Amino acid sequence: MDFEALFETQLDALRQEGNYRRFANLERQCGRFPRARNHDDDAPAEVTVWCSNDYLGMGQHPVVTERMKEVIDSCGAGAGGTRNISGTNAHHVALERELADLHGKEGALLFTSGYVSNWAALSTLGGRLSDAVILSDELNHASMIEGIRHSRAKKVIWKHNDPEDLDAKLSALPANAPKIVAFESVYSMDGDICPMEEIVEVAEKHGAMTYLDEVHAVGLYGPRGGGVSEERGLAHRITLIEGTLGKAYGVVGGYITGSAALCDFVRSFASGFIFTTALPPAVAAAAQASIAYLKESDAERQAQRQNVARLRAGLDRAGIPHLPNPSHIIPVMIKDPVKCRMIADILMRDYGIYVQPINYPTVPKGTERLRFTPSPWHTDADIDHLINALTVLWKQCAIAHEVA
Amino acid sequence: MDFEALFETQLDALRQEGNYRRFANLERQCGRFPRARNHDDDAPAEVTVWCSNDYLGMGQHPVVTERMKEVIDSCGAGAGGTRNISGTNAHHVALERELADLHGKEGALLFTSGYVSNWAALSTLGGRLSDAVILSDELNHASMIEGIRHSRAKKVIWKHNDPEDLDAKLSALPANAPKIVAFESVYSMDGDICPMEEIVEVAEKHGAMTYLDEVHAVGLYGPRGGGVSEERGLAHRITLIEGTLGKAYGVVGGYITGSAALCDFVRSFASGFIFTTALPPAVAAAAQASIAYLKESDAERQAQRQNVARLRAGLDRAGIPHLPNPSHIIPVMIKDPVKCRMIADILMRDYGIYVQPINYPTVPKGTERLRFTPSPWHTDADIDHLINALTVLWKQCAIAHEVA
Repeated sequence: MDFEALFETQLDALRQEGNYRRFANLERQCGRFPRARNHDDDAPAEVTVWCSNDYLGMGQHPVVTERMKEVIDSCGAGAGGTRNISGTNAHHVALERELADLHGKEGALLFTSGYVSNWAALSTLGGRLSDAVILSDELNHASMIEGIRHSRAKKVIWKHNDPEDLDAKLSALPANAPKIVAFESVYSMDGDICPMEEIVEVAEKHGAMTYLDEVHAVGLYGPRGGGVSEERGLAHRITLIEGTLGKAYGVVGGYITGSAALCDFVRSFASGFIFTTALPPAVAAAAQASIAYLKESDAERQAQRQNVARLRAGLDRAGIPHLPNPSHIIPVMIKDPVKCRMIADILMRDYGIYVQPINYPTVPKGTERLRFTPSPWHTDADIDHLINALTVLWKQCAIAHEVA
Repeated sequence: MDFEALFETQLDALRQEGNYRRFANLERQCGRFPRARNHDDDAPAEVTVWCSNDYLGMGQHPVVTERMKEVIDSCGAGAGGTRNISGTNAHHVALERELADLHGKEGALLFTSGYVSNWAALSTLGGRLSDAVILSDELNHASMIEGIRHSRAKKVIWKHNDPEDLDAKLSALPANAPKIVAFESVYSMDGDICPMEEIVEVAEKHGAMTYLDEVHAVGLYGPRGGGVSEERGLAHRITLIEGTLGKAYGVVGGYITGSAALCDFVRSFASGFIFTTALPPAVAAAAQASIAYLKESDAERQAQRQNVARLRAGLDRAGIPHLPNPSHIIPVMIKDPVKCRMIADILMRDYGIYVQPINYPTVPKGTERLRFTPSPWHTDADIDHLINALTVLWKQCAIAHEVA
């Protein structure tokens, strides 16, 4: 069997449709966020990153980096085992308490990534609750989709952010089946935010569990960074809140929070939790420091919002269309994978602006885009430079009217 | 729907069969391996860890910890994005080159964990190669089982470490179906090692791809730590070698190595690779330092082997039965979950010896065990203390004859 040929055939198909991915080879510069050293040829040696999910630059905050180094000094690099077999460290336990407190829940459970937390929690809930039905928003993240698929539970897809459709779908199900309503607060590619209260009310009416992914919201929304569920005073009505330590908190890892029994249930039965090496203690401690800091400090969130508003206003003045939404994510739609890649390449090469083209499978084909995430650390000059570059490009490439 | 009651019912069942897990809350002491501070009541404040998968103590080696701190200083804490969206760092790229070199392969691909590398690679290979059949050793790790399950490919289980049975199972399959033979080198719970050459020959005869998990072998076997496949000169005949950075290398993360096209294929299509935040650059750099160090230094491997032999000899002298195997893993069979937990509790409380009881689902019910992993850093006194403790306990509890 010629496996190489099988691989190449599918890779060629990707290339032909313009969806073959090249990764920008960068080196982050601690203390100089959002600058990065560029290791690829054909582009400036230093670039400005405009698409980081380290939304607040906390990955370079001294509170986080110093704490991480301190705990490397005290505990070493890795955890040395799974949580059950020598891998649980006092820093994991402390982080789980911090996370439970962040969302006002009894318990929390740490995973190696946000992807794994969604995959493991949903596959365990859907797989181990007899006759469970998972009602999934149609734009849920890949990690939730794969978790639901892996659970082999019955899956019902409801229209994106549509509580009425959810209500109709729930009404059609048997009253005695355990129902899990899975959705996100901030959808990362369009930047829209769910009608959370309406969804919660529909779920409560039907006695369904609510499973909320807040990965693009924790640290960023709510007075203590508890996400949209905190901002809207709804956290106590959500059964399970899932989040990440790898975006606004600037480190890596994922988690769920909920009742003590819920967390214990997932802890006890989730393959993706049980059979994997725990996160390094220093990562847990750094993440805890980041969360604790953002519980107190609002300055980063305020500065980020100002920059988001400033970039939107600049794009509007320049006549560059972008998706309207109430979040910190600014999608500029290109709607063609080849053109999207070409514009990103020119921005990088000629302007030192790094924004990754977002193509399939991250977004549906035909909805390719540039996705800008202004941070508190982008300067006015950075924003002006970006808008100038896009203005030139839009004229050169005659894109503005095509995508408007 | 009373979800709390549903959770509690299943947790109660675990408790009744003695399989409910309590995690030891420890704090590793960098530079004092294998000591750890104990945060649980009812046990000494300092304990000696006898069940770490940081097999060589590399998680506390200055080469690793200093490198990790250096790159925190230069790059910050987290990667800031998925590999595709701003998360690729020069340290990831360098680590992938190091890994490809370690196994003599064209390419390598980094994952957030060994679990995810198995799950994502097998689900992608099995899911995207039409009519693929995965032939899985019956004792493969949970991460492989879940990856195969997720792929929805046809799965054929062959008898553990039995090339004849594999041959028979392969012979029964259609000649033109892509076949993937998935197996491990060192099986972590029994410590046995596969008949690799025979398996490779059978696979080659049938034109099957070989998928080898070396997570309990990399860093430990072979002159450069390339695993059992290096030790036996077989790496070039294995299609894909999977490993971890979280055990002998002492950090965290997983990887695959293979042809450039194979790695590119998984890179381009694996959901569990694409949609997740990359490992922190400092973690990648620390892992690379650990691999590079163990490519050169054999002293840790030699010292570990001496301690493994010393503990085995001491157990033999004391008449404490343990599973014979050619690896560094010493399983002492207890075969009862409640007794296994009880012995571990007494060892911890009265002797400051930490060995986690290994119960279902990590091992089949009825094969509960204590699993000792001597490191280069356990002293002769540590080994004597352990053997003395077990001797007393075996007399007190009248276990020796029961489990012999």
